[in-house]
Amino acid sequence: MSTSTDRDLSRAIREWSEIVSADHVVTDPTSLGAASTATFATSARLPLILRPADRQQVQACLRVANAHRVAVYPISTGRNWGYGSRVPAADGSVLLDLSRMNRIVDFSEDLAYVTVEPGVTQQQLFDFLRANRSRLWMDATGARPDCSLIGNTMERGFGHTPYGDHFAHVCGFEVVLPGGECIETGFSRFARASTGPLYRWGLGPTLDGLFTQSNFGIVTRMSIWLMPAPEHFEAFFFRCDDERGLGDVLDALRWLRLNGTMRSAAHIGNDYKVLNGIGQYPWERTSGTTPLRPELMAGLRKELRFGAWNGSGGLYGTRAQVREARRLMRQALRGKVAKLQFLSERKLDLASRFARPYGLITGWDISAALELVRPVFSLLKGVPTEAPMASSYWRKRTPPPADMDPDRDRCGLLWCAPVAPLEARHGERLTRLSIDTLLAHGFEPMLSLSLVTDRALTCVVSICYDRDVPGEDDRAMRCYRELLDRLTASGYHSYRLGIQSSAEMADNDAYAALLATLKRALDPNEILAPGRYGIG
Amino acid sequence: MSTSTDRDLSRAIREWSEIVSADHVVTDPTSLGAASTATFATSARLPLILRPADRQQVQACLRVANAHRVAVYPISTGRNWGYGSRVPAADGSVLLDLSRMNRIVDFSEDLAYVTVEPGVTQQQLFDFLRANRSRLWMDATGARPDCSLIGNTMERGFGHTPYGDHFAHVCGFEVVLPGGECIETGFSRFARASTGPLYRWGLGPTLDGLFTQSNFGIVTRMSIWLMPAPEHFEAFFFRCDDERGLGDVLDALRWLRLNGTMRSAAHIGNDYKVLNGIGQYPWERTSGTTPLRPELMAGLRKELRFGAWNGSGGLYGTRAQVREARRLMRQALRGKVAKLQFLSERKLDLASRFARPYGLITGWDISAALELVRPVFSLLKGVPTEAPMASSYWRKRTPPPADMDPDRDRCGLLWCAPVAPLEARHGERLTRLSIDTLLAHGFEPMLSLSLVTDRALTCVVSICYDRDVPGEDDRAMRCYRELLDRLTASGYHSYRLGIQSSAEMADNDAYAALLATLKRALDPNEILAPGRYGIG
Repeated sequence: MSTSTDRDLSRAIREWSEIVSADHVVTDPTSLGAASTATFATSARLPLILRPADRQQVQACLRVANAHRVAVYPISTGRNWGYGSRVPAADGSVLLDLSRMNRIVDFSEDLAYVTVEPGVTQQQLFDFLRANRSRLWMDATGARPDCSLIGNTMERGFGHTPYGDHFAHVCGFEVVLPGGECIETGFSRFARASTGPLYRWGLGPTLDGLFTQSNFGIVTRMSIWLMPAPEHFEAFFFRCDDERGLGDVLDALRWLRLNGTMRSAAHIGNDYKVLNGIGQYPWERTSGTTPLRPELMAGLRKELRFGAWNGSGGLYGTRAQVREARRLMRQALRGKVAKLQFLSERKLDLASRFARPYGLITGWDISAALELVRPVFSLLKGVPTEAPMASSYWRKRTPPPADMDPDRDRCGLLWCAPVAPLEARHGERLTRLSIDTLLAHGFEPMLSLSLVTDRALTCVVSICYDRDVPGEDDRAMRCYRELLDRLTASGYHSYRLGIQSSAEMADNDAYAALLATLKRALDPNEILAPGRYGIG
Repeated sequence: MSTSTDRDLSRAIREWSEIVSADHVVTDPTSLGAASTATFATSARLPLILRPADRQQVQACLRVANAHRVAVYPISTGRNWGYGSRVPAADGSVLLDLSRMNRIVDFSEDLAYVTVEPGVTQQQLFDFLRANRSRLWMDATGARPDCSLIGNTMERGFGHTPYGDHFAHVCGFEVVLPGGECIETGFSRFARASTGPLYRWGLGPTLDGLFTQSNFGIVTRMSIWLMPAPEHFEAFFFRCDDERGLGDVLDALRWLRLNGTMRSAAHIGNDYKVLNGIGQYPWERTSGTTPLRPELMAGLRKELRFGAWNGSGGLYGTRAQVREARRLMRQALRGKVAKLQFLSERKLDLASRFARPYGLITGWDISAALELVRPVFSLLKGVPTEAPMASSYWRKRTPPPADMDPDRDRCGLLWCAPVAPLEARHGERLTRLSIDTLLAHGFEPMLSLSLVTDRALTCVVSICYDRDVPGEDDRAMRCYRELLDRLTASGYHSYRLGIQSSAEMADNDAYAALLATLKRALDPNEILAPGRYGIG
């Protein structure tokens, strides 16, 4: 880690002010306090925020950082909730906020791609496509519409459409290296190349992967592939009432993915996850106690008509292709799930219009379940949605405000995202282990399984709590650490880590030595995001 | 480049002999001569060949190479025809032949992958799957059945099935670094990981790409994803009689790829490529002159009933999925191609049985065209085939021997493989430019376009000649260089380069500086494949 002094920092600030102008050097305590607050306890102090306007300013800022040995921590829009929000991995790092760089710099309807800067959000791209009357769909994550596309891809996040594995559908990075030099990856390295945004691997070693989940460079531009809107789209939903039924479902879905029938990243949420999506913690039903016990959860499942496991996904294609996919899906899931349903746009409209509000139980409205379907339906079509955001207010005693901000509102949220083979026994073991660990620590085990690829599943485990409850930060972190330890000991390593656990990466093996060698070569002064993913 | 002396080399040889045993240190002039012969003129001299038996021996060999500063050049099976065969990029490098490391070390029918060493060939994997009564298909390239799977993937080669983009369908590399350390990539870096062969990106920076088309490490193990055999398979074939018809076809095929109908890497060969696939140069028809003029080619097309452009590919799925794909394909290609035909296994058998031998013209047999279909049909099902091999004997005056060896038999072959956007105007410009250049230099322009990905096409241009014709090596190389220059000046950079052109990579820009920085960090003594892809 760099060892800058106050004097180094003062000098750097003077020079940075000249580069980005004083207006974009943020030092007021309110802003700094907000930016150093995450959805769990953190300790890193933030001396200032820099807001460069363009790539040249980023380069100049890094040169100053090197000259004075001051560490900087880049964020795109900084909505990395559950993993650390905007808070730097190392104490004393200057926040390099790239959200002003929000241009959409290239777009092709025919070749189906768009080129964006780090500040471009999901909503901005969605609006752009609509304004251009595009026939292309983007992929959206369940994160808020104002999340950065580049930021999510750098963390190798995922969404819900056939383009759900984000890092697999991007191309041609522009990268500012720690020393301030700028390169472009893939064929974009050649000034005249016609295929920069189109062909991923380029010529010579492929470097894109180097700049994801690391601190080897700042990606300031990236092309994202878009998907032509299919002639026909249908969402599918199913539930599995038996808690032990998950394994069979996973095996069936693996087959559907491997044979190309199911091209989208199907999701399966457990009962707790669904309840968390519908509303806040049922304080009345539990007489104010936590956690929500499995026995009560089983009762709520019946009342509210969802399953122990609840699946959703999309079918994309022509009418005939979707029809055949439906047939194959019914065949594969027969006897393994209840209520396999297919929902087209038209059906959804009808259902909403005629659905009577019924089934009121202690303040729970069954029509909320339909409202749970809408955002999923949207996400499956690549439409960003605000809806999942409210789930971080789960244990709060007051409803989520109109202007939600989990960091500010002291929502407690820790995400742990282990990956397992897409096989019955592994899916069952991973979920059992997660459920047991969370309940033992007094938290509701909210699990969301995503079949992002054909052979592996990612399980996002949410530890949701209220930071205003004394001691809860510590309890949640202890739960998180035990969960992470137990999962990795069982072979289920995380696809992504937040600042709460970057140190888990810092092994003492040949691989860690290789990362350290690369870091030394690329960032000899260790000024770029030291500590991120345990590197440097 | 390392500057080893004879004394360094002698010392190294002594130590290597202890590691791999003297039997596997090859120094006889015949073997060295064969290994330093490619399908074009090369100058690198080869002092010896080392044949390690396992990964530990590779590590020990590299440590010796470092101690004595002797450069080594790794090959898997060394069938890199058209790009340099086994010949090292730098003069004086020791050949590290990994072909003895030929174990299939892991296999899962359910999760559809196999883990192999560098010496495992296409045929070996195919036989293995058959012996295991596997329902999985591999992807095969048109290269010979005894080509290495790892070798091809390291060059980012491609095949014909939906898994045609090889580097996109592999996972978890075991890599010996230049210093002799061994790492594993992706989740395999963690000893207990359950998802090493299943989930590509792992945790932290993704490093796989670093080890392809480079000299940063030796991949000694890799998992390859396999495709479940579809319920139904049909090949499609079409021709386009109008030379100017290519553009419309490309636009139609892009649409079919982008919407997921055509999941395989369709190929389009021009007339010269098809003729080259059927037999040798028509010396009689041309009265012994070269090149084969376009006018005569046009005549042969009519006689032999193939098109100016000839497409093929596969449709995979259930019967209903394939039926719908056929419908969409007919719709998209209507009016743009002649003779769009779909061929199932059953139809192919029937056709072969009842096809009368007819249409004999100066030694050309139309039944040969059917024989051209068979290997394509096989490749589309992932069955490796010997057939395309004969095409390198094109300009030879004697027929290919039973035991073909283009290096030994002095077949001239230079491959140039530019990538272009999958768009009419680019496809037309790239092919026009290639055709004009080859004809101007007196060679037949044999072009094979592959739609390996949804947005870009790769065009393999073959310069086929007879190395026994005096001066032809030089003429071919001049043609190659002009072609490469003209293509890159137009923005069509190659997806891969052979030793004949690694220097084209060595630019003087920030990107080249980054590669040099990485090389210095990973291989400070520059002992691993110096000069490969212009690095180090």
